Amino acid sequence: METELPTIFSAKRTSFVRTSVIREILKLTVENSNILSFAGGLPNPDLFPKDVFSSVMESVVRENISTAFQYGDSSGYEALRTQIAEKLTDVSWVSSRSITITHGSQQGLDILGKIFMDSDTNVLLEDPVYLGALQAFSPYHPNFFSVPMEPDGPNLYWLEEILSQNKIHVFYANPSYQNPSTYTWSLEKRIKIANLLDTKEIILIEDEAYRYLDFEGKVYPSVSSFRKRNDLTFVLGSFSKILSPGFRLGWVVVPDLYRNLFTAVKQGNDLNSNQFSQVVVSKLLKTMDFDVHLHSIQSFYKGQKESLVSLLGKYLPEVKFSLPEGGMFLWVEYPKGTSKELMEHCLKNGVAMVPGTEFSPASRSSSFFRMNFSFLTKDVMEIGVKRIADVYRDINT
Amino acid sequence: METELPTIFSAKRTSFVRTSVIREILKLTVENSNILSFAGGLPNPDLFPKDVFSSVMESVVRENISTAFQYGDSSGYEALRTQIAEKLTDVSWVSSRSITITHGSQQGLDILGKIFMDSDTNVLLEDPVYLGALQAFSPYHPNFFSVPMEPDGPNLYWLEEILSQNKIHVFYANPSYQNPSTYTWSLEKRIKIANLLDTKEIILIEDEAYRYLDFEGKVYPSVSSFRKRNDLTFVLGSFSKILSPGFRLGWVVVPDLYRNLFTAVKQGNDLNSNQFSQVVVSKLLKTMDFDVHLHSIQSFYKGQKESLVSLLGKYLPEVKFSLPEGGMFLWVEYPKGTSKELMEHCLKNGVAMVPGTEFSPASRSSSFFRMNFSFLTKDVMEIGVKRIADVYRDINT
Repeated sequence: METELPTIFSAKRTSFVRTSVIREILKLTVENSNILSFAGGLPNPDLFPKDVFSSVMESVVRENISTAFQYGDSSGYEALRTQIAEKLTDVSWVSSRSITITHGSQQGLDILGKIFMDSDTNVLLEDPVYLGALQAFSPYHPNFFSVPMEPDGPNLYWLEEILSQNKIHVFYANPSYQNPSTYTWSLEKRIKIANLLDTKEIILIEDEAYRYLDFEGKVYPSVSSFRKRNDLTFVLGSFSKILSPGFRLGWVVVPDLYRNLFTAVKQGNDLNSNQFSQVVVSKLLKTMDFDVHLHSIQSFYKGQKESLVSLLGKYLPEVKFSLPEGGMFLWVEYPKGTSKELMEHCLKNGVAMVPGTEFSPASRSSSFFRMNFSFLTKDVMEIGVKRIADVYRDINT
Repeated sequence: METELPTIFSAKRTSFVRTSVIREILKLTVENSNILSFAGGLPNPDLFPKDVFSSVMESVVRENISTAFQYGDSSGYEALRTQIAEKLTDVSWVSSRSITITHGSQQGLDILGKIFMDSDTNVLLEDPVYLGALQAFSPYHPNFFSVPMEPDGPNLYWLEEILSQNKIHVFYANPSYQNPSTYTWSLEKRIKIANLLDTKEIILIEDEAYRYLDFEGKVYPSVSSFRKRNDLTFVLGSFSKILSPGFRLGWVVVPDLYRNLFTAVKQGNDLNSNQFSQVVVSKLLKTMDFDVHLHSIQSFYKGQKESLVSLLGKYLPEVKFSLPEGGMFLWVEYPKGTSKELMEHCLKNGVAMVPGTEFSPASRSSSFFRMNFSFLTKDVMEIGVKRIADVYRDINT
């Protein structure tokens, strides 16, 4: 499954580049439509507000052509930055000037890796961790540390141990409906850890790409909103899960102190973010009833989650998972057999999910799989779960 | 004019990050509409094919919603890659698999910097050089060398001297209508240098962002098309100048050997390029008569160039420049006074252009300015040139 990178003339950092099995699986499922995929993290296209898309595009071409089709500010389109500052962030010191629009929150991770990570930077990750962060950070070759996660956030004993024994410079965390575990930090842990990071003067990269995917419409305050050290906290957001990944837009809330540097790095990376998509998204936010739209996503995903939970209960009662409060995944432990073997047999039997090893900072083997429930219909999920159950029984008898 | 980057906790590479005076000037001209700007590199919005834009957007939303608004392949949208391979490249070994779509050719430069450039990589640049390349490469901190440019390409004596005295790993060049100088390599130099690079086993990063902007519709064969070492040559292209910068799309022709690595780095940078814009651009290329469109851009810019040339002849006969064959700029020598002084006075007097120092690999002072002619109307250019002439006379009397 691994893509081998050949030995060729290249910079030293390329030996730390990580490929993504998820994207390989995604490719397989595109090429072979018989494979039912729980592997992706694709939002359900039925939730894209098509009618509004059409009328907004049309009005952008009619009214905003000289802005929308031109180069733009490296920090992003001012109107959109203002909307994000007003509606989609909760840190008290935010203004439109603190927002930089990026090509997905993934680009925010790359820029922050470039800004902060050297071979002598100590970076703390969650275990399991979002694979895209490993891909963004690894080429900069920092020293990775990791803290074991529990369903309500990092294990505090281990967190304090790690922070007392090492000078950690940066903590990358995904506190709400984490990808892959869907674990969500409790309010208590958010406050406690914000204080701890202040005391230890640690930079927090808080990835809030899933912030608005709570099944009940709850929105947790960000960890950053509890920090006193406003100069040491970055919050990443994304339109991919709440509007569409097709716009490839996210943002980073950047402290004043780092604003010029962040913008200069963004310029070197790709000058500015897609201006047309920025103007369209800004108009969409103005035009549509965003709360109603969010509610429809949240209740749809809640139904999808309930379907997968009940299918697993029916066909695979031996697997274990904790019930998520939101997000797009179940983080499922298959107690018997190795995940590599299970995955290979699943793919042969026409069903895909992502092995937990992919999300392990140390690439440790894992009995967990990430199962997506946002994309397949209930009927197709049932066929898929049956295929997994067949394979799992085969391997373990 | 320089943006100071504060001394803050950050990776060592950030001390090599270069800010762009052009973007600062762009911001000034947006904030103060009294400043007439020859500084940008903005395509003229009148040349955007608005009517086709509208109908194509509408059809994408109607027909391609599940592709256009979803995540996509990290290498890019297959249909668009095929179109680029068939229509917009001239190296014999190209196929859709060799094309990776990037967020502007600028992102191609960043990815190639990440792949190739370490503190022990020797990188040869043109002098003057495209500023964006300096911004992309500098954080990776390679050793820069530079070859003096003549209107028909690199000075061959110096090129051979440099290559015989140093192990150059990578040559970054912009052979057609270069930004800023608009110099264009002759056919003879293209062939000669392709052979030289083969002999010395040097990787070529050939930036062809301006390839289709010849005033007479001529298209020069790429230097890469003359190379025998297909594994050592990358060609960058862009839709910014031929369709619109608003789509923020470019591409890189990547040799087989580097394909997996290039895609893995692209993934870490931002997962994939804006899928919606890719589908739109692909449909645009199918729908519109591209040759007619290119012809209208080429003849419009030719007229604009002639206007600026005649205005300079009338009001500033003492300045010097060579007549370009294409592109969007004149590279103008103001023989007396320093460019820093002239620029400051110009900005005070409501006119902007970019000082040559910005394009010097070694930041040497320069008596050249880059003057854009694509954006202002003839009447406004006349007011602008008069303002520059006033300032220039003031300083030099």
